[in-house]
Amino acid sequence: MTTSTIPECEACRPDAQKLTGEEIARYVRELPEWRVETIDHVPQLHRSYKVRNFAEALSFTNRVGDLAESIGHHPQLVTEWGRVTVKWWSHKIKGLHELDFALAKRCDALIGN
Amino acid sequence: MTTSTIPECEACRPDAQKLTGEEIARYVRELPEWRVETIDHVPQLHRSYKVRNFAEALSFTNRVGDLAESIGHHPQLVTEWGRVTVKWWSHKIKGLHELDFALAKRCDALIGN
Repeated sequence: MTTSTIPECEACRPDAQKLTGEEIARYVRELPEWRVETIDHVPQLHRSYKVRNFAEALSFTNRVGDLAESIGHHPQLVTEWGRVTVKWWSHKIKGLHELDFALAKRCDALIGN
Repeated sequence: MTTSTIPECEACRPDAQKLTGEEIARYVRELPEWRVETIDHVPQLHRSYKVRNFAEALSFTNRVGDLAESIGHHPQLVTEWGRVTVKWWSHKIKGLHELDFALAKRCDALIGN
């Protein structure tokens, strides 16, 4: 697994299009399990997934991690017994890009809900 | 990978021996890269490891996760691009057990410093 052959992630370019507050509000209504929290003036999109134990948490972390590597855009993943919390945001633009929402939706598909 | 055949973790018994503040201070001096932070009245032992990218972060997360499964005592792991933060504490006793320090030391061995 290497990032060297992956094209530059569109959301990670300094001139990437940051979503407006209105766009964020619209997108997040489509993902009712996700929340937007602003930390150090940067809105972050996060969801906690409940799983059965630590092994399942680690397995889901790997599935999300592999997705992130395939796209070249990386979340923060908190892995603990019975739970994985996924946070997406776009560091370069200090905000949310539409790719963050697209990947949030793909995480939901990976866990099966 | 399953926890079903793993003996119950000693630190996860309700009557496990919680370390005193003095013992914690003594142990943490032996692990200078680790810090103790008290969250919701529970001391937690944590260290951030810098790595080169996301793939290395995920790989280290898996090594720590496999160690945790082999012992039956589980940390919180924060995986992000270039960094993994490991937090150990013993939920059942709402404190730190000597196993938390033993596993912190083993994490250092896993990363190679």
